[in-house]
Amino acid sequence: MITLKELADRCGVSTATVSNAINGKSNISETTKQRILQMIKETGYKPNFMARTLRVNSKRTIGLVIEELAAFSSAPIIEGIMRYFEKQKYETILYNMRVYSNPNWMNDEDFVQTCVNNAVEELLSKQVNGIIHVAEHSRKLKYYNENLPVPVVISYAYPDERKLPYVSIDDNSSTAKMAEYILSKGHKKIAMICGSKDNLHAEKRCNSFKRVLKEHGVPLDENLCVYANWTRETGKAAAAKVLKKGVSAVFCHNDFIAAGVYDYLYEKNLQPGKDLLVTGFDNHIISSFLHPEITTMKLPLLEIGEKSAELMDNLLENDSTCTEGFEIPCELILR
Amino acid sequence: MITLKELADRCGVSTATVSNAINGKSNISETTKQRILQMIKETGYKPNFMARTLRVNSKRTIGLVIEELAAFSSAPIIEGIMRYFEKQKYETILYNMRVYSNPNWMNDEDFVQTCVNNAVEELLSKQVNGIIHVAEHSRKLKYYNENLPVPVVISYAYPDERKLPYVSIDDNSSTAKMAEYILSKGHKKIAMICGSKDNLHAEKRCNSFKRVLKEHGVPLDENLCVYANWTRETGKAAAAKVLKKGVSAVFCHNDFIAAGVYDYLYEKNLQPGKDLLVTGFDNHIISSFLHPEITTMKLPLLEIGEKSAELMDNLLENDSTCTEGFEIPCELILR
Repeated sequence: MITLKELADRCGVSTATVSNAINGKSNISETTKQRILQMIKETGYKPNFMARTLRVNSKRTIGLVIEELAAFSSAPIIEGIMRYFEKQKYETILYNMRVYSNPNWMNDEDFVQTCVNNAVEELLSKQVNGIIHVAEHSRKLKYYNENLPVPVVISYAYPDERKLPYVSIDDNSSTAKMAEYILSKGHKKIAMICGSKDNLHAEKRCNSFKRVLKEHGVPLDENLCVYANWTRETGKAAAAKVLKKGVSAVFCHNDFIAAGVYDYLYEKNLQPGKDLLVTGFDNHIISSFLHPEITTMKLPLLEIGEKSAELMDNLLENDSTCTEGFEIPCELILR
Repeated sequence: MITLKELADRCGVSTATVSNAINGKSNISETTKQRILQMIKETGYKPNFMARTLRVNSKRTIGLVIEELAAFSSAPIIEGIMRYFEKQKYETILYNMRVYSNPNWMNDEDFVQTCVNNAVEELLSKQVNGIIHVAEHSRKLKYYNENLPVPVVISYAYPDERKLPYVSIDDNSSTAKMAEYILSKGHKKIAMICGSKDNLHAEKRCNSFKRVLKEHGVPLDENLCVYANWTRETGKAAAAKVLKKGVSAVFCHNDFIAAGVYDYLYEKNLQPGKDLLVTGFDNHIISSFLHPEITTMKLPLLEIGEKSAELMDNLLENDSTCTEGFEIPCELILR
């Protein structure tokens, strides 16, 4: 029997146009529609949704293992991947692991490993040609064993022992830019409120910030470096600890911590931006709704997605065993 | 040959545990692992990822047609759907239409129709048992023709001519709650900044607000009712038009418009909340980062997802032709 593709070729139109003609849509000309319907009659073509699987198999399909779709970083990364693949005519299948369904997931590697196993099994059963793992935050991932029959690219995190291609953000250079900005404003007594301990982002931002301040001859006082836990509430509590000490600027490891600092300042009738320079990180949507809007670092999420897709494309096109990693710098958003 | 499921049954464990044993994961006891490996030897079971499709077919699969994954409402609705289906052991396949890739999508019904056609064709080729359409915003959808071989549920919007089950928000009762709250604070001169014209949410909120104010003997002055376009910028421009007229409260159709009102007030050295009561709608994350935090209506997004999944479950379980629609009220968030 004639296929949809063959029918479309005979009519000199796309398969989408044939599909529209069959479905009686109005977005094609009456002449084209009649030509297609006539050809359907002549050839005896029967629209058959199931037949599509055959055609699909000639297209490559990439499975996206998404740790948590609800994470603010996930949608832009996925958009970057899909934007790239759309141009390359790859298909994508999204698998949402929903790690937030386990409140303790960050300390439960077995849980995450089981989620990944299920995701991989599911995607392989759907015959994907490659897997891109979209992490909730950057860390070293050890979920993928070497026996997988398809290539894996890590997006927004790093591989552990196994050498895998990855794309993440450049915390070091980005933090250096922020440090230089704060110094350029003449600040000498500067505090830092870090993300959680044992977190890769926090570690890199902390070290990079200290290094740049030291290089400029205004080393960070260890008493002015405290840890929060990425949230507004812990940011506020950290502010209470560190801001009594007469600092004029504070670098926060994310925008939520910065929002907590704002809360502390409001409570003390102090004005963020005027009485204290507060800077954030992430360019989360909330950062432009704080009052005043906050200077922050924009995560290159779309770019991470696009680059991850490009790496996968290279792996499949050139059948290479590339294990290259990329770190993309963030953009300083001055406000 | 023995299947994974049969093997798991013989071992008295889940298929996930068998999979973990095969993959050498550490999250199962050594005894269990040895028992499984012994059984694999005895039965001659060969792990075969592709074989899984056979098992999958005994499970029901629901395709989610997502208009735009990046919309703030999408992830919570999807989470609600997946949470429900997880309990029911359905699988889900996500199809992201990416309507934002066409900046003019809201006025380009042919574009959206083509996206839906592609999504449906794709999902049917993957042999889904039902489709849930996750809309970007509520409106009347006419994308699904009657010849589809599987049931369709509309999530966060309404069907057009064809009777389809749907779940959306109850704009009328929610707006009434907001109106009563504003009235309870003693306000008599009240303004409203609406979303865009021809938008179903805006129309319902507008009519409901006017009705309640009238019922309470303080009818809305037509000069104090203006349209914005859901954004911060248009909200600020609308505020400039309407707030010169000495109002003491303004009801905004979403939180972004309310943020624009804040911007206007700051510029005039006025204090939101003190010089003017401003209320929003959506409980978008930004609403709790405005200063002061804003009173708003929380969209029941998780609940919309769960209810949509429940409707689909009923359709499939009872093989019914239910066309019931549900509107879920929002929750007033006082701040």
